[in-house]
Amino acid sequence: MLGTASQAPTRYRNHNGYLLRWDGEGLLFDPGEGTQRQLTLAGIAVSAITRICVTHLHGDHCLGLPGVLQRLSLDGVQHPVTVHYPASGQVYVDRLRRASIYDERADVRLEPMEGDDTVTVNDSLTLSTRTLDHRVDAVGYRLVERDGRRLLPDRLEAAGLSGPEVGRVQREGSVEVGGRRVGLHEVSEHRRGQRFAFVMDTRWCDAALELAAGVDLLVCESTFLEAERELADAYGHLTAAQAASLALEAGVRRLVLAHFSQRHPDEREYLAEARQIFPDVVAARELDRIALPLRRR
Amino acid sequence: MLGTASQAPTRYRNHNGYLLRWDGEGLLFDPGEGTQRQLTLAGIAVSAITRICVTHLHGDHCLGLPGVLQRLSLDGVQHPVTVHYPASGQVYVDRLRRASIYDERADVRLEPMEGDDTVTVNDSLTLSTRTLDHRVDAVGYRLVERDGRRLLPDRLEAAGLSGPEVGRVQREGSVEVGGRRVGLHEVSEHRRGQRFAFVMDTRWCDAALELAAGVDLLVCESTFLEAERELADAYGHLTAAQAASLALEAGVRRLVLAHFSQRHPDEREYLAEARQIFPDVVAARELDRIALPLRRR
Repeated sequence: MLGTASQAPTRYRNHNGYLLRWDGEGLLFDPGEGTQRQLTLAGIAVSAITRICVTHLHGDHCLGLPGVLQRLSLDGVQHPVTVHYPASGQVYVDRLRRASIYDERADVRLEPMEGDDTVTVNDSLTLSTRTLDHRVDAVGYRLVERDGRRLLPDRLEAAGLSGPEVGRVQREGSVEVGGRRVGLHEVSEHRRGQRFAFVMDTRWCDAALELAAGVDLLVCESTFLEAERELADAYGHLTAAQAASLALEAGVRRLVLAHFSQRHPDEREYLAEARQIFPDVVAARELDRIALPLRRR
Repeated sequence: MLGTASQAPTRYRNHNGYLLRWDGEGLLFDPGEGTQRQLTLAGIAVSAITRICVTHLHGDHCLGLPGVLQRLSLDGVQHPVTVHYPASGQVYVDRLRRASIYDERADVRLEPMEGDDTVTVNDSLTLSTRTLDHRVDAVGYRLVERDGRRLLPDRLEAAGLSGPEVGRVQREGSVEVGGRRVGLHEVSEHRRGQRFAFVMDTRWCDAALELAAGVDLLVCESTFLEAERELADAYGHLTAAQAASLALEAGVRRLVLAHFSQRHPDEREYLAEARQIFPDVVAARELDRIALPLRRR
């Protein structure tokens, strides 16, 4: 949680910025102004970033992009970094990418998302967008890990598999042991892929529910409290209660609230409201590290 | 001192940002990324800003411009804010000004500076630039207050001036008292205007000396120490010793060192080096408030 403020930063909250570490991937969502320094405060090098996902082109969600991109070059990061954003924001992304003079050496790849879109991150992850309901074009992101197999030690033992054969049955799907072919399905069970969703600036909408459906972790905007529901509707935002209802209705496992209005310096106000509706909820604080729930068994 | 880092921010130093308050004016120099939040941390509203002076278009000196400009609109600032920068940087300033989607309502006026240029700030202040010697087009700034008159209480009394007549003699240059016309020069003495200079990224050059000549306060880059003199030359920067020599040679009254390399987390290293050459020197720390020396008598 690199920053949790909405429109205006405060003494205690930087503008947005959320880094999701997932095996070898580092997905940076909505780098607001100051994200470069927040990474330093969190003890994370920009080389941890493999992908940047921008929900929309309001400043609090993207003005940190120039600093992060320039820092990739300055630090000599070698791997490619892909940047996603709503396709209609191209003109802003072009300006942000060349906002000041620098020696661009990093391998930055722009991949605009066309509303409801899906891209492959790697062998096991796909990233999808849905168009949300905000004052400007905005998308949310959903990351889905491919389902896999979980090896079962008792079955491995019963089948007589050990040592390098365990790796082979995983890679090749079956392995010959003592004259018999053992299939992966015999020594393993189904393992559901983990799922993550990132829902920023939006009113309540079906697209938000689709993004959040059954995810293990949902990071959701929670700009206002229910008492400010009219403001939330007018400016295209959610209340803490709405975020909690979204999590409940979508069958989310853990909810993280963020993107707080400066009206409420104490994030526990949001927590208290959401908790009445949805139990496993965290109101993010600056530089918090929040884990995905452990895989379901 | 809103930020004192050079290329990369650190845990303890934000990117550049320097606000000079001068009567009703607020001159913001080199807003690096995060300046908007640093203002909040310093307890200063963006409405305090009347003019923004950018020395050059490297990111650490200008990536905070979008946030500051957008905040002027968000906060409904009514007075005009003029932005100065080297004219060759126009394309970057245009991108920074419209880097993301917002409702531009503030009265922002762009006034590019053509190398050696001078503009009028108000009745008593002029702002000048000189071209420095950096890796890209860069200027330094010099602010000069018009010389004036300091009223002398004993002379006022001797001439029989009191109450509203004191204001009139200042405004009108003379006033009639008991049948006699008293001129301002009779009841006052010459008052030298205060002077300020801002010298950022540059190698040692005559232009830096011209900017700093006889100023009361010089804010000067001090990226490296003398032991790194080759680096300083190669990258177009000054060492603490060079900044001190500049202040000495230019007849500066007080020197403030800033724009420190991340190599040296402790600013006292710079201070120790500079102090051997120039006595009235401060190595800036984040959010320090440093006063111009009192007017000379």
